[in-house]
Amino acid sequence: MISYLTVRECYDLCALASDMEQDSMEYVQLQGWIRTNRKSKNVGFIELNDGTYFRSAQLVYSKDLEDFEEIGKYGTGTAITVTGKFKVTPDGRQPFELDVTEVVLEGACDSEYPLQKKRHSYEYLREISHLRVRTNSFMAVFRVRSVLSMAIHEFFQNQGFVYVHSPIITGNDAEGAGEAFVVTTREDGQYEKDFFGKKASLTVSGQLHAEAFALAFRDVYTFGPTFRAEKSNTPRHASEFWMVEPEIAFADLDDNMNLIEDLVKYSIDYVLQNAPEEMKFFNERIDKGLMDRLELILKSEFKRMPYTQAVELLQKSGKEFEFDVEWGHDLQTEHERYLSEEVVGGPVFITDYPKDIKSFYMRMNEDGKTVAACDLLVPYVGELVGGSQREERLDYLESRMDELNIPHEGLEWYADLRRYGGVKHAGFGIGFERFLMYITGMTNIRDVIPFPRTPRHLDY
Amino acid sequence: MISYLTVRECYDLCALASDMEQDSMEYVQLQGWIRTNRKSKNVGFIELNDGTYFRSAQLVYSKDLEDFEEIGKYGTGTAITVTGKFKVTPDGRQPFELDVTEVVLEGACDSEYPLQKKRHSYEYLREISHLRVRTNSFMAVFRVRSVLSMAIHEFFQNQGFVYVHSPIITGNDAEGAGEAFVVTTREDGQYEKDFFGKKASLTVSGQLHAEAFALAFRDVYTFGPTFRAEKSNTPRHASEFWMVEPEIAFADLDDNMNLIEDLVKYSIDYVLQNAPEEMKFFNERIDKGLMDRLELILKSEFKRMPYTQAVELLQKSGKEFEFDVEWGHDLQTEHERYLSEEVVGGPVFITDYPKDIKSFYMRMNEDGKTVAACDLLVPYVGELVGGSQREERLDYLESRMDELNIPHEGLEWYADLRRYGGVKHAGFGIGFERFLMYITGMTNIRDVIPFPRTPRHLDY
Repeated sequence: MISYLTVRECYDLCALASDMEQDSMEYVQLQGWIRTNRKSKNVGFIELNDGTYFRSAQLVYSKDLEDFEEIGKYGTGTAITVTGKFKVTPDGRQPFELDVTEVVLEGACDSEYPLQKKRHSYEYLREISHLRVRTNSFMAVFRVRSVLSMAIHEFFQNQGFVYVHSPIITGNDAEGAGEAFVVTTREDGQYEKDFFGKKASLTVSGQLHAEAFALAFRDVYTFGPTFRAEKSNTPRHASEFWMVEPEIAFADLDDNMNLIEDLVKYSIDYVLQNAPEEMKFFNERIDKGLMDRLELILKSEFKRMPYTQAVELLQKSGKEFEFDVEWGHDLQTEHERYLSEEVVGGPVFITDYPKDIKSFYMRMNEDGKTVAACDLLVPYVGELVGGSQREERLDYLESRMDELNIPHEGLEWYADLRRYGGVKHAGFGIGFERFLMYITGMTNIRDVIPFPRTPRHLDY
Repeated sequence: MISYLTVRECYDLCALASDMEQDSMEYVQLQGWIRTNRKSKNVGFIELNDGTYFRSAQLVYSKDLEDFEEIGKYGTGTAITVTGKFKVTPDGRQPFELDVTEVVLEGACDSEYPLQKKRHSYEYLREISHLRVRTNSFMAVFRVRSVLSMAIHEFFQNQGFVYVHSPIITGNDAEGAGEAFVVTTREDGQYEKDFFGKKASLTVSGQLHAEAFALAFRDVYTFGPTFRAEKSNTPRHASEFWMVEPEIAFADLDDNMNLIEDLVKYSIDYVLQNAPEEMKFFNERIDKGLMDRLELILKSEFKRMPYTQAVELLQKSGKEFEFDVEWGHDLQTEHERYLSEEVVGGPVFITDYPKDIKSFYMRMNEDGKTVAACDLLVPYVGELVGGSQREERLDYLESRMDELNIPHEGLEWYADLRRYGGVKHAGFGIGFERFLMYITGMTNIRDVIPFPRTPRHLDY
């Protein structure tokens, strides 16, 4: 009898099943793609990956097979269906192998296949996004991307949060201020004659819309694509990326920070549990300090420190920074890293930033100078999450909008949320790719997005 | 001692806990928004909803309270924190009520609040998308939207599918053919000078990109927004909507149909389990045949019928259709409904459509006239899902592209997937909103999208 299995199922069975059950799997059939194929005079070895698992299956074929020579010619990338006797190999590098009895060619691979055995640079692989996912590094990245997505959904749904699809096309670019892409069906900028009868942009954040839903459902989150038409060609900027933006009602800044801490820990733990082989790979091959860093996060109690105190500590530190530290200015990554690495030795929330370096919707503190914002800083990266309590007092909100010359028109609905049963509420945004980079140790955002979009790069 | 709870938690405790545990909850504090407030001379009743549950909590306040008269004036939409003695009321309409000891005003509600007690038309509520979510109908719709999203993620992730974020901005509008929005930072259509150095569009489908990932991971799915710049003002068309597009390798049309059937049944069952109050509401107030229809789906074995046979049956039916039935033409909704309602009496896949009415990437059948496509038709709606086996043979694919004048340029990577270990694979697309409408009985797509976008409508 033949068992039709995936490579993943074979590994699971070896890990879980008793010897007897394994013995009952006399013949196994697998389908997948050849990673490597080595053949000597009498015997050959194929590493077969079928995408269901990070690791491959070892196939052993011998010259007893009629098409022994033919099989030996199958190169990397060739797709085959293979049947073989299942053999447990507790002392081998893999827990099992297949003694091949039959190989059927499913899809030949052209000899010009760009992914041969040798290692390729990430730069090169970026030019073949449709194929790089077949390599170890990218197969690990994109499986973890999927697993991390699920971690986020489970975290929120388990607590009764409602997932909101905030709109992608928006008529309100208040937040985007010059960095929003325009969406049009015309080529002359006459937006009043355009598809929507007005100027339309790609969203830079779903937060304002999420607030409307939080004031009905209490706890909500978004998880969707956002866009920036920013010409920054850095390893941390992409024109299209995904954001997670939770919003909670009857909640203040402390509740917000508790939620951030829970989310970060839950997600890391979930990925470690659900993608152990991939995480082992990242720790060994991409970033040797990775696992230690993540374990530190898991066991840390996230500290909290007001911005004003952080500035004082930085000024007194005696450390020479490239950028000066001055109250009222944004913290630079070097400052953020110093605070979390040297001062705290772990994750730290910096709270209560000067109002002038934060957004109009953040809640004014009693001092009239700072707002109830919180940024989570983590070692080796700096800012990972940014959030705030929202201004629920209509008069404060409107005077802040006036101060910043933000037109009330188009945001009447946002004011309505304060007019009709508005309550204290808070929320945050986490850049999904930044979080994914943090968890995998990958250092270029182009390498964690399936088909990345950056200035002058729109392939596929 | 005061227990700080949500309305949902109160209901859960009443359903699950022993009498003793309920007794231990002497005082409970809730926070939420007033749905209704009725007061007589000595006693008042408030329905309090906090968004965590479809149903509300009943608050009873008496003239013993110092601010009895004041509380009596709190109108619909007012946000309060309420403390009260928890009382199980097994014979009441609600399983519990709160004998109020204290009410704190959290957020007043302006007297011009558009949502007063009386019922509003959906047309009117569409103009206040930021508030309509506070009504029964829309709170039910948008919680089910969230639950259905999670059903889809769980269905795929439980089986090891990898979630792929296919790109939103795309340089390839082969599929969009005139119906794609342009993404730009210019107002003169000079795309070579534009942000990406070429014309950029909003995606109409993530399928082609998903195929690249399926040929690495075997089983993948997308779940993201897609766009059509189509000027159809119908209850079933929106300019921005979400699609689920699974893609499976080493799989044919039969595997595809099995997967569709499993997904549809799993999702419906999941929603019935996880949003029972909402589903009861839809069945009683929105669409009285809803539950029967869904139960029929759950217990049906989905039938399969070739297009050619379907056309014969329609032609022989003797039924007068508005549109003629002719081999080679698309089936209209009236035909689809007749097939599933009258001929089959349940869900049915129509397979093997004429190539001329289907897309270039669908696999050619041996007859040279039809392709391995499958549409799922369901009673009362017609088409719910469309899928196909993909053409994995490069020569067939390229000759179809030539036939349809689809340029090879820009799709070289798609051809590569056939060149390098290409294998049989299949996939399908399900319009998330259409599926949501089917499950809730809502008949206008504008009423199942948080902030809908349609021609000349871009509010919020």
